[in-house]
Amino acid sequence: MKYCCYCSAELIYEIPDDDNRYRYICQSCEIIHYQNPKIVAGSIPVWEDQILLCKRAIEPRYGYWTLPAGFMELGETSLEAAIRETLEEANAKIEVEDLYAIFNLPYVDQVYMMFKSRLVDLDFSPGEETQEVKLFDEGDIPWNEIAFTTVKQTLKFYFEDRNNGNFHQHTGDIIKKDGKYDFVETLL
Amino acid sequence: MKYCCYCSAELIYEIPDDDNRYRYICQSCEIIHYQNPKIVAGSIPVWEDQILLCKRAIEPRYGYWTLPAGFMELGETSLEAAIRETLEEANAKIEVEDLYAIFNLPYVDQVYMMFKSRLVDLDFSPGEETQEVKLFDEGDIPWNEIAFTTVKQTLKFYFEDRNNGNFHQHTGDIIKKDGKYDFVETLL
Repeated sequence: MKYCCYCSAELIYEIPDDDNRYRYICQSCEIIHYQNPKIVAGSIPVWEDQILLCKRAIEPRYGYWTLPAGFMELGETSLEAAIRETLEEANAKIEVEDLYAIFNLPYVDQVYMMFKSRLVDLDFSPGEETQEVKLFDEGDIPWNEIAFTTVKQTLKFYFEDRNNGNFHQHTGDIIKKDGKYDFVETLL
Repeated sequence: MKYCCYCSAELIYEIPDDDNRYRYICQSCEIIHYQNPKIVAGSIPVWEDQILLCKRAIEPRYGYWTLPAGFMELGETSLEAAIRETLEEANAKIEVEDLYAIFNLPYVDQVYMMFKSRLVDLDFSPGEETQEVKLFDEGDIPWNEIAFTTVKQTLKFYFEDRNNGNFHQHTGDIIKKDGKYDFVETLL
């Protein structure tokens, strides 16, 4: 950020009066340009014993498998965002059951909200950002070709809980350290 | 938004190729300026049978009572945000127990995350944005002087659940219609 989006004057980066963080401030109209984390909403679409995954047709992680998910838009709820993303990426209709996983990713300023869902029918197909959509049994999940740590962790919890007969919400943080990603579960 | 914050050229408001929503797009550097909902994180600080509330010293809702809450900042987790806001607004230290309420407010593009918490001690006092900090019994809650629908709804659920001996997470949407606010619980 270099310029004010309201008046086009140059921004300065300093701590405003009565604040304790650096912000972008307009030198002319004095507006403070706050920046905040974004929500990524997605689904775990389940059909009997199988999970629907999407093979990505876009960067990042082109060709890797993911659960349908994406940035929540203005004017919608997190649940609507998860349903919309599932429709856009997999042309799949779901019924949402639970808010299953909430992960903070402070290194990219994102919060993931993943909803456990039921596929309504078997009418699905690749959306514009997807190469292939497929149902996977637990034993066939391509663990080494999963696009994101958030998706791998969500799937890991899902199968653990299913095998233990005990589904419950998972809350935690994904921390990036020395180029590696660690998951820390909180509020156990 | 009128100008590009990266190059200061004028923005146009139209639907980009391969998209289905209006976005602000820079006519010069072609960057798309996405806008997304923000997270408000806060706490329900409990001491024995009492709840800590803060009387606001700032607009909006100057002089009304609220639970400590505020916008999540870059680089932090939602739990860290709730702890920080409680410290900033009430100089109060908490131990977080549960993610108790998650409310979507699509009419202002916010998602509230309220954490049920224990006050660590009785050492609290007004922060810069607060006139007064006080512990309330259920019977003394100033229901007609609560600052926000989100706070009123969170407190309502808290006392209902406590009286029923059944604390559980509440997820829902606050909808603004004809100037009135309605709460719709989802994922029951």
